[in-house]
Amino acid sequence: MSGFGPDHLPYGVFSTPGAPPRVGVRLGDGILDLAFETGRDHFAAPSLNAFLALGPAAWDEAREEVSALVRDDDFELLPLSSARLHLPFEVADYVDFYCSEHHAAGVGRLFRPDAEPLLPNWRHLPVGYHGRAGSVVVSGSSVVRPSGQRLLPGDDGPSYGPSRRLDLEAELGFVVGAPSAPGSRVGPDALADHVFGVVGLNDWSARDVQAWEYRPLGPFLGKSFATTVSAWVTPLSALDAAWTPLPGQSPAPLPHLAHADGADAAVGLDVAVEVVVDGVVVSRPPYASTYWSPGQMLAHLTSNGAALRTGDLFASGTISGPSPDQVGSLLELTADGTRPRSPGEVRTWLEDGEEVVLRYSAPSVTGGRLTLGEVAGRIESARAPA
Amino acid sequence: MSGFGPDHLPYGVFSTPGAPPRVGVRLGDGILDLAFETGRDHFAAPSLNAFLALGPAAWDEAREEVSALVRDDDFELLPLSSARLHLPFEVADYVDFYCSEHHAAGVGRLFRPDAEPLLPNWRHLPVGYHGRAGSVVVSGSSVVRPSGQRLLPGDDGPSYGPSRRLDLEAELGFVVGAPSAPGSRVGPDALADHVFGVVGLNDWSARDVQAWEYRPLGPFLGKSFATTVSAWVTPLSALDAAWTPLPGQSPAPLPHLAHADGADAAVGLDVAVEVVVDGVVVSRPPYASTYWSPGQMLAHLTSNGAALRTGDLFASGTISGPSPDQVGSLLELTADGTRPRSPGEVRTWLEDGEEVVLRYSAPSVTGGRLTLGEVAGRIESARAPA
Repeated sequence: MSGFGPDHLPYGVFSTPGAPPRVGVRLGDGILDLAFETGRDHFAAPSLNAFLALGPAAWDEAREEVSALVRDDDFELLPLSSARLHLPFEVADYVDFYCSEHHAAGVGRLFRPDAEPLLPNWRHLPVGYHGRAGSVVVSGSSVVRPSGQRLLPGDDGPSYGPSRRLDLEAELGFVVGAPSAPGSRVGPDALADHVFGVVGLNDWSARDVQAWEYRPLGPFLGKSFATTVSAWVTPLSALDAAWTPLPGQSPAPLPHLAHADGADAAVGLDVAVEVVVDGVVVSRPPYASTYWSPGQMLAHLTSNGAALRTGDLFASGTISGPSPDQVGSLLELTADGTRPRSPGEVRTWLEDGEEVVLRYSAPSVTGGRLTLGEVAGRIESARAPA
Repeated sequence: MSGFGPDHLPYGVFSTPGAPPRVGVRLGDGILDLAFETGRDHFAAPSLNAFLALGPAAWDEAREEVSALVRDDDFELLPLSSARLHLPFEVADYVDFYCSEHHAAGVGRLFRPDAEPLLPNWRHLPVGYHGRAGSVVVSGSSVVRPSGQRLLPGDDGPSYGPSRRLDLEAELGFVVGAPSAPGSRVGPDALADHVFGVVGLNDWSARDVQAWEYRPLGPFLGKSFATTVSAWVTPLSALDAAWTPLPGQSPAPLPHLAHADGADAAVGLDVAVEVVVDGVVVSRPPYASTYWSPGQMLAHLTSNGAALRTGDLFASGTISGPSPDQVGSLLELTADGTRPRSPGEVRTWLEDGEEVVLRYSAPSVTGGRLTLGEVAGRIESARAPA
């Protein structure tokens, strides 16, 4: 079943010729049509949102129902190759964090070589910002090279044109199902009360546009042209065997961000990532090396009373491990474009026509491994100005 | 008609006891029920979005139809006092800009007294960032004082608690109706092809939370607890007499941000704002003094190919004029809390129980003035931790 066995059962939205988009579950190289198999209205829908809004008890019930169908061999399987996959959920707000210490410090060393690699707030809260929900696309969508304003080396002033420093960011995304009330906050141990599951995520970045625009309000057009997520959402309930302690947190987080059993409790996720550019694995970022936990991102996000909505998406930020072959961006891998992105290679940043594929896997309760939905996108050349 | 005459006709969403939310137009102190008057489905809806999606020709047609009803005295008017007003549109993505030179320079002088007040990029592009769409609320909604992590004066490390530096930001918001295609861009002179109208907007800000969190990814929780918009959306077509030249742009913007007839053309809007705190007018920001035009915000926002969606909201950023009694935030008015916010006053930042009202007006084609929808919100004390 190559990682998509009965221990996994991720959800997506698909269509077949002549029939509208609807919810399905992937099993091996096939799709269970949940609209057909269950007859439920919330599965006969073009997004997962109606199902997501039902909350954890309904998610568990659906998983049991699908597991029973599979166990009893009581289902039809549509070949994956006959289906078109759609964006699995309507994104409400998209928040991107910056949770990997190795990434944040690596970027700090590149851009502020004479200063402390981490800014003063970094170990006290998971730094984050809002991205563009409307630019989130499903795996397989091509990405047009963005144009933007940037200061080219040697130029006195900025110019407008195609990005010359186009990058990927390998991340893990979390999909909110159950909303929270405005003015309330969600504690770090309440992740499973609100989050339905995870997606792979590539937060494409135009580094030259970002470098020129980002002060003082943060990334904007350098990121807002496209963010790609996997077509399959792996439910948290499939990841029971993937929980693992955090690498360690010092200083101890303030009480509103602290897990009840501390950072040594299994509050991080052991998800392995592979970054493939133009067919070559260039890096293997381990999500387990990330400093801030998913629950802490959620707690921080709601710590000012901001409400969660069904369809909210929040992501880890670039996942980078401690070693040079574990970094989740070309910015780090190429030291800001100053060295090739892999041995025997001359290329640095992404070039037109190249495809990026992010692959994810995690331990399964069966002792095997789950293959999470991949995140693929090919770079199209910049459009001629309108 | 006190600014809400037949020359204005702003749109909103209202409900009455026993009847669901639907689209109406304000006339004087009454509401025309467009669902009832026109029988059209897109007005029998709980948001303006279906109408907004129809585009400029349909907007013009609707305005003519309503104008004819009013001219012929062929309508019923529901008393405003009998209706509850709702958020007028579902917000897709919310982008906040930083377009006022007087504001950006004022903030720069406060926070970087020994450096150039404006950062190097500021005169080359309208700096902006994404805010939280899910936290946008309608005028009249109370605002719970947010808690957050902040570094208190004299403390070695951050603590979590209610914001002590709660501020308002007087802004003008622009509501996108007609979408654009991903990968395309919208020119600075195409505002009216996409933007339906304007709202008043208060981008509430917790300055202590913002100061601690914002490096390097920009504002997040210091802003994401609430953004209030007016209940009434004034169509651009009511603002024909309000267009005015920009104060001037130097250096000349790059071609993709340049209006065809230059900054001396009438591409800015003459909207007058009053900031009222606890019943006292503390400031009168003039939107006409803003450096970047609405069309330039739109052109910048789409210059990387990001698509517009129906319901997108983008805002000017804090509006501040050249004189001290024209600033649009308490940050500037109180010099970061170091002086009272008005003569004979001791208070600086917003206190619990205080109400903020932003009032807006603009010249009408009749020679009188339109009163745009007000933006009101009262501060509730912080919630006890959950």
